[in-house]
Amino acid sequence: MTRFEVLILGNSSATPMYGRHPTSQLLNFNEQLFLIDCGEGTQMQLFRYGIKGSRISHIFISHLHGDHYFGLIGLLSSQHLVGRQNELHLYGPPALKEILDLQFKHSDTRLRYPLVFHSTNEDHSEVIFENAHLSVRSFPLRHRIACTGFRFDEKKRSASLKKEEVERLNIPIPYLRFLKKGIDYVANDGTVYLAKNLTNPPPPPRSYGYCSDTVVNEDYFEEIRGVDLLYHEATFLHDRIERAKETFHTTSLEAAQVAQIVGARKLLLGHFSARYKDLQPLLDESRTIFPHTELSEEGKWFLV
Amino acid sequence: MTRFEVLILGNSSATPMYGRHPTSQLLNFNEQLFLIDCGEGTQMQLFRYGIKGSRISHIFISHLHGDHYFGLIGLLSSQHLVGRQNELHLYGPPALKEILDLQFKHSDTRLRYPLVFHSTNEDHSEVIFENAHLSVRSFPLRHRIACTGFRFDEKKRSASLKKEEVERLNIPIPYLRFLKKGIDYVANDGTVYLAKNLTNPPPPPRSYGYCSDTVVNEDYFEEIRGVDLLYHEATFLHDRIERAKETFHTTSLEAAQVAQIVGARKLLLGHFSARYKDLQPLLDESRTIFPHTELSEEGKWFLV
Repeated sequence: MTRFEVLILGNSSATPMYGRHPTSQLLNFNEQLFLIDCGEGTQMQLFRYGIKGSRISHIFISHLHGDHYFGLIGLLSSQHLVGRQNELHLYGPPALKEILDLQFKHSDTRLRYPLVFHSTNEDHSEVIFENAHLSVRSFPLRHRIACTGFRFDEKKRSASLKKEEVERLNIPIPYLRFLKKGIDYVANDGTVYLAKNLTNPPPPPRSYGYCSDTVVNEDYFEEIRGVDLLYHEATFLHDRIERAKETFHTTSLEAAQVAQIVGARKLLLGHFSARYKDLQPLLDESRTIFPHTELSEEGKWFLV
Repeated sequence: MTRFEVLILGNSSATPMYGRHPTSQLLNFNEQLFLIDCGEGTQMQLFRYGIKGSRISHIFISHLHGDHYFGLIGLLSSQHLVGRQNELHLYGPPALKEILDLQFKHSDTRLRYPLVFHSTNEDHSEVIFENAHLSVRSFPLRHRIACTGFRFDEKKRSASLKKEEVERLNIPIPYLRFLKKGIDYVANDGTVYLAKNLTNPPPPPRSYGYCSDTVVNEDYFEEIRGVDLLYHEATFLHDRIERAKETFHTTSLEAAQVAQIVGARKLLLGHFSARYKDLQPLLDESRTIFPHTELSEEGKWFLV
C-alpha cells in the first residue's frame, strides 16, 4: 500500500507554549513530501524528526497569520545555504511572495534553487496540484484574514492481477493491462475470461482534509466530504464558544460535529490555545460526539 | 554590585543544527533586559529559560541576515497577543521596519503596545541608547551586508561612603553627597576631612562588546577597546581562513587575536558553523592565544 501519512511538527495556536510549536505538518505520500503551513521553528522540528528539508517538494501556506508561516523564510533560506538545487513549489496568498522577496532582497540572497510561487485563491476552491497519483485542492475557509484549507486526494488506482490465476490460464501478456482496467479477455476459441475474476479490486482511494484557522460554517463542508482523515483546528473548549466566534476559531466540540456531518473516518485536533496546558479535555470533549478523534501530538505520524 | 550579565539564547550560524539555535543573547543590566539579535526560535528559547518577553525593553538587531532576525516578527507578534502594553524600543537597519510593517499589514495586526523604531547607521559609530547607568553604542562591522556591533558601557558610579567613619566624625548629612563625588569636607574649625579617606572608590565600570558577523579588520578595534567581556563571532577554525574571508567571517584564532589586541578581559566565542558538531576544537584554538576564552553555550549566563 502506498504510504500516505502525516507527521505533526507543530500543534500550537498563536503563541508557542509548553514546548509546543506553531502549526506545521509534513505529509508523506509515496515518499513525496509536502509541507503544510510552516510556523516559526519548523526547520528545527524537521531536523529533530530526521527529515531532510531538501526532500520537500511542495509547501502549502493556509494564511498569513504568523503562527502559520513565520518559519517559512528561515526554511527557504536554509535550503539555499545547504545548497539545494531541486525545484520547490510554494502555494499561498499572493502577498506571501512580496514578503519573502523583500527579505531576500535585504539579505542580498539570490536563491540557488528554483522557487516556484503559486497564488492561492480566497474566493473559490480549485485544484492547485496534480500528478498521476495525487491531487491537491485549496478551498476558502472563514477566518479574520483570507485563509484556505487543503484537500489531498489519492487517485483511483488500477486493479491488481491475481498473478497465479493469470499464469495458470496463460493469458497473453499484452492483454494484462486491459484486465487491470476491467476489460474482459476473449480468447481465440471464444472463451470469455472475466476481468473481475482475474483481478483484485484496488483499495479505495484515500484523502486528507486540512482545515486550519476557521470559524465553523457550512460553506466548506462539501470540500471535505468523506475524507479519511480530517485535521480540524480546535483552538478552544466549547465553554469558550463566544471567544472562538470572536476570534474566528473553532471549539473541539464543533470540530467533532464537522467530522460527523462530513462523514470523516478519523479526526485530528490541533491549533491548541496557550490557555490549555493539559490537552486531554479537548480530546474528551470531541470524543463525546466523534469517538475516532486524536490529538495532533508533535512528532507523531498519523495514517490517512 | 549591579547585575550585568548575558544569557546565550543561540550560538549557531546560518542553519540551525544539533539542537543549536541561531544567534540571540539576552543582556541583564540591573534587571533591565536587552535582547541582542533575534534568530528564529528566540521566543521559544526565552520561554525555555524562564524569561518573560514583556520584561525586554530594548532589542538590538545587528544586520538583516536571517539567522540574526527571523525570530523578531514572531516575538513582536506574540508580545502583542499576550497583551503587552509597555514600550519596546527596536534598533536595527532601516529596512527592518519595512519588513516588519509589511508582515503586520498582511496579518492585519495593529500592535497594542508602542514599538519605537530607531535606525542604526552602517557608516559611523554613535551612542544609540543612554540612561543614568548605561550607554549603548553601535559601530560598523564589515560583512557581506551592512552590519553593526554594539557596545554596552556601564557608567562610572560614585564612590561609596565609609559609613562608620563618617558617623564617628559626625560629618553633616548635606555634605555626604559631595564626599561621594570626591570633594573634601572642611569643618567650621578649619579641619579638612579628605574625601579619599572617607569613601571607598567605585568599582571600575564594566563593558560588554558584541561583534556579530564580520571579517576581522582594524576599523572596529577602537570600538571594543578594553571591554571586560568581548563576544566575537568565530564561525570557523583557522584551517578555513580562506572560507572565512570569502564569507566575511572570522576564525576562532582571529577572534582570540582581536581579544588580545583590544585588551579584552574575557572572550566569548559564538556563531558556530554547522560544520562543527563538537565545538571544543574552536575553544582550544582560541585559548592557544587567549586563555580566558569561553564558548557561548546556550542557556548559560556569563558575567560581564
